[in-house]
Amino acid sequence: MEKTSDKNKLILIICDGMGDLPTLRGKTPLALARKPNIDKMARAGMNGLLHTIAPGVIPGSDTAHLALFGYDPHEFYKGRGVFEALGAGVKLQEGDVALRANFATVDRTMHVIDRRAGRIDTKDAHALGASLDGMRIEGVEIIFKPTTEHRASLILRGKNLSYKITDTDPHSLGKIKRSEPLENTTEAHTTAFVLNEFTHRARNILSSHPLNRKRKLPANVVLARGASVYERAPSLYEKYGFRSACVAGGALYKGVAKFVGMDIIDVKGATGTLETDVMAKAGAAIRALDDYDFIFLHVKGMDNASHDGDARAKIKMIERVDKMIGALLKTGAYIVLTADHSTPISKREHTADPTPILIYGKNLRGDDVKKFDEINVARGALGHLRGLELMPIIVSLMGYAKVYGS
Amino acid sequence: MEKTSDKNKLILIICDGMGDLPTLRGKTPLALARKPNIDKMARAGMNGLLHTIAPGVIPGSDTAHLALFGYDPHEFYKGRGVFEALGAGVKLQEGDVALRANFATVDRTMHVIDRRAGRIDTKDAHALGASLDGMRIEGVEIIFKPTTEHRASLILRGKNLSYKITDTDPHSLGKIKRSEPLENTTEAHTTAFVLNEFTHRARNILSSHPLNRKRKLPANVVLARGASVYERAPSLYEKYGFRSACVAGGALYKGVAKFVGMDIIDVKGATGTLETDVMAKAGAAIRALDDYDFIFLHVKGMDNASHDGDARAKIKMIERVDKMIGALLKTGAYIVLTADHSTPISKREHTADPTPILIYGKNLRGDDVKKFDEINVARGALGHLRGLELMPIIVSLMGYAKVYGS
Repeated sequence: MEKTSDKNKLILIICDGMGDLPTLRGKTPLALARKPNIDKMARAGMNGLLHTIAPGVIPGSDTAHLALFGYDPHEFYKGRGVFEALGAGVKLQEGDVALRANFATVDRTMHVIDRRAGRIDTKDAHALGASLDGMRIEGVEIIFKPTTEHRASLILRGKNLSYKITDTDPHSLGKIKRSEPLENTTEAHTTAFVLNEFTHRARNILSSHPLNRKRKLPANVVLARGASVYERAPSLYEKYGFRSACVAGGALYKGVAKFVGMDIIDVKGATGTLETDVMAKAGAAIRALDDYDFIFLHVKGMDNASHDGDARAKIKMIERVDKMIGALLKTGAYIVLTADHSTPISKREHTADPTPILIYGKNLRGDDVKKFDEINVARGALGHLRGLELMPIIVSLMGYAKVYGS
Repeated sequence: MEKTSDKNKLILIICDGMGDLPTLRGKTPLALARKPNIDKMARAGMNGLLHTIAPGVIPGSDTAHLALFGYDPHEFYKGRGVFEALGAGVKLQEGDVALRANFATVDRTMHVIDRRAGRIDTKDAHALGASLDGMRIEGVEIIFKPTTEHRASLILRGKNLSYKITDTDPHSLGKIKRSEPLENTTEAHTTAFVLNEFTHRARNILSSHPLNRKRKLPANVVLARGASVYERAPSLYEKYGFRSACVAGGALYKGVAKFVGMDIIDVKGATGTLETDVMAKAGAAIRALDDYDFIFLHVKGMDNASHDGDARAKIKMIERVDKMIGALLKTGAYIVLTADHSTPISKREHTADPTPILIYGKNLRGDDVKKFDEINVARGALGHLRGLELMPIIVSLMGYAKVYGS
């Protein structure tokens, strides 16, 4: 027999929150959806179940994606803020402390009366944000980068900072909180002080900002939460030698992709919502195959539908993804289809139920799974995988794995 | 869809030594037993195989239970004695060295001629034990607590003791041994000295005890084995926030339960033998659900039958457990059914064969397993689990798991 070619391209499709429970007259949304392309892949490929972190552990979106990319979250996860910042396009430096931030409305006694400042629009938020960006407090540089609507990334840049501090965000309608150190170190005390001082100064600047005069619910405060620290990780290219790119709508997913060294391909119409343009994403992924070996394609809509408990919308989104996959099948690239976690519509939140996974492409062993759903894949050829086991399998399929030993 | 309720109750049933091999005309005892309730749970629930420690590792009862409760035995197992002592109701303190002890009969040359002192009865053993309890040797307090028949717990309490010492028990009919240090430390030397001195003094006290005069085989010596040290572990409540209770006959199982912070529910008729009153245990478990979230229900009989090589008794015990489960099914609690290890009747000892496991309750994915036995469960939805993975799954089903990441 002829030796097959050495290197292969691969598309990893993560359908956020796709895994579910059989609560729709004994069926899951995946079992009910009409999805000829996905089922064709299931029949020709290998199927199984994936515990993104470990059995019984409920994955967050950030930790799950780190694990799927082969980065042990117990080593690399230092809070969500850095991924949001990277996803918003901030160039982070080693040691930066990144927080997720919100414009909100407080009354005179610093009680939050609207957590989204009356759902301030993106344009106004960017204009207000410019007045806070570049501030310096005790030698610490403040980078403030609004993203969409009331949301923003807040970065504290300086020497000897710590992410072991509490939120200023009260997480409900209550008095804004003072950030406190979570450990008794100079670094944590300093960082909490800087965040509190930023909050105070931002309050003064925003209160007198002309844009706020016309607002019924002025964006007169910044709430910050989820302090995290940026520590550079080796890129996928450094680890394996292949070029990778990300096609995603949500900032978080772009951020994790950036963290592991992927290039980000911005796609018009990729919104991270149920209305996202999946065919535009497919097109972008197909074009990216010219320049990249590995494409991470993220679809968020199933998760949104799940958090809303909307089975019909979840099924419809799966059927739209099936059409998207129809286009991707023509590329000849390997396709890996799975989810980062289950979000059953009956629970409306992440659960520890393992996610279905399939691998499709040439020279695979196959199994007798005929339909791709949570129940049928359980007896597939892939068995029960752990999240960290996926990337080595991908690297091997792509032809970048080296023999261990000789 | 409506959001389901947050917290759930769960009963973990461990059938000691239930796993077996297909040596009965190609069938295992589980496959031959009539067990309509268990098979009903298998059809409706999820099935799989469980390697309590790891594939190929033969579990002890103590290490297996630690793993099933989510405590890595490589970290928490410091010998069996502490569990026997805790199960006997001794309140241990950090650093206590606990040994398993036997009343035995020696001749004048200190040779053991009966390892059970003529199967001394519990009442006499308790009376003799009182004469040894409370002794002090070199500042070390001796706690001697008889349990059933010839068995007892021996605790050495003091500063700077070590459990790295050898047994005085010759483990056969031979000369009683001197305890020797297993490491060259002052602690180990001291502890061995104290144990030898205790053995000597106990011999003198027992030889002249009035109760022994009438005995043909006087209980004139104490054999000690399995030195272990008590180190406090975080309780299940501290780790997860749910209240847990144990329904078991044998002291060892109560002891491991106590070690992980369970309350012990004493049940009249729960003997840890083939004659145990399983319906009394079911009743106790059902009543306990009022006050507790998690019930550990241990049934020992299958293991006794297996060690005797008695297939008929093992099958009968499984059928009695099936009736017990019939009562438990009415509670609506999740039920997890498994074993701590396999004890095939053809081998009469623990083996590394994985144990069958099923999880039954609402909102599960299910699989196509129709009968609960070692062969059929292998293609179930749970796949092949490791012992330490079970408790996270339980915690998650009960609704006490937290998202890892965000």
